[in-house]
Amino acid sequence: MIIAILLYPGLTALDAIGPYEVLNSAEGLDIRFVWKKSGPVVTDHGRFTLGATHGFDETGRPDVLIVPGSSANTGHAMRDEAVLAYVRSVHEHTRWTTSVCSGALVLAAAGILKGHPATTHWAVMSSLARFGAEPRPQMRVVTSGKVITAAGVSAGIDMGLALLAELKGAQVAKAVQLAIEYDPQPPFDTGHTTKADAATLAFAKQRLQARGSAPQPWE
Amino acid sequence: MIIAILLYPGLTALDAIGPYEVLNSAEGLDIRFVWKKSGPVVTDHGRFTLGATHGFDETGRPDVLIVPGSSANTGHAMRDEAVLAYVRSVHEHTRWTTSVCSGALVLAAAGILKGHPATTHWAVMSSLARFGAEPRPQMRVVTSGKVITAAGVSAGIDMGLALLAELKGAQVAKAVQLAIEYDPQPPFDTGHTTKADAATLAFAKQRLQARGSAPQPWE
Repeated sequence: MIIAILLYPGLTALDAIGPYEVLNSAEGLDIRFVWKKSGPVVTDHGRFTLGATHGFDETGRPDVLIVPGSSANTGHAMRDEAVLAYVRSVHEHTRWTTSVCSGALVLAAAGILKGHPATTHWAVMSSLARFGAEPRPQMRVVTSGKVITAAGVSAGIDMGLALLAELKGAQVAKAVQLAIEYDPQPPFDTGHTTKADAATLAFAKQRLQARGSAPQPWE
Repeated sequence: MIIAILLYPGLTALDAIGPYEVLNSAEGLDIRFVWKKSGPVVTDHGRFTLGATHGFDETGRPDVLIVPGSSANTGHAMRDEAVLAYVRSVHEHTRWTTSVCSGALVLAAAGILKGHPATTHWAVMSSLARFGAEPRPQMRVVTSGKVITAAGVSAGIDMGLALLAELKGAQVAKAVQLAIEYDPQPPFDTGHTTKADAATLAFAKQRLQARGSAPQPWE
């Protein structure tokens, strides 16, 4: 079984590595990091790179597609015809097509989320409806048919475990959750917009804005 | 402020990327991935690479050191004199010296954990005492003086947030927790050995064993 994790310049590293590490802890999965060609792909840090293991043409029919998001560059992926063509072509044959964070907007731009309930990073949630998706801002992981979308960044770990349970069964997923010791104890209770106090929300928005994460070109 | 994240062949990607993404979401931190020289470093998948941005000699005095673990290769790092010399030398001047997962054993092998309460991945917890550390198997993040150790793999996110709160204050850490939407909803309740049922624990041990993660050379 082939898993293709899409890389593209400016992606958020944890969006890709969260589900990767979950799936990498199981056996029998051929996990590939794909981009137009193999080699280093720079993340949103602007300097740190993840290595694409395969070009698009080497992984034309993965069983699972995972599309990570980006804190600043999702719009470029959404307008890149080669990316959209790959995502559309792959989706025709996948068993599961999935996204983390603003990666949902790449699926949306490819026309895949039309009519689907879906989630994404809270800061770009409103964009989903413009592509015909039905936003589910309260949900961390949304499964609709063979499409699974996850909320922002760290939600890719939860999505990865849900996906693994589908692929390999709950017993394997439970063991992997123990293997990666996913027994979260966040130091604060500010991980969702409905939980964060007004000052934290305003501060987070201001910081995302300052980093060029918003407004996004599709907004 | 310079943050050095140690890379080495065979490391577990999420151990490094968890705290990286937390710190990368704050401003004013010069985050570097360091190895003997810059360039690609292969992870425990055997194929997927993370890019070292700096050589050891380019980052001799970071303010913070983060040492990730490995599901199969920690022992090599623990016996690599160049790694131990770098870790020891850097530790003399750090504000914080930290680890994720079995990265604690690299700190231990460098002599840094002697007399310190510390945590690590549950599968290698018993090794801590052999290096004079005091194991804290119930704790996900342990702070002792300027040393912070985290439990397995995903615990690096929790550690990263605690570290960020120390470096930049709680308000910034709260906003970053929202920015990376760290509002975990694991699908199972099997993330700690005290929570997993006996079958899951046995299955997880068997899988780690099969992957060569145990027995480790220091056990």
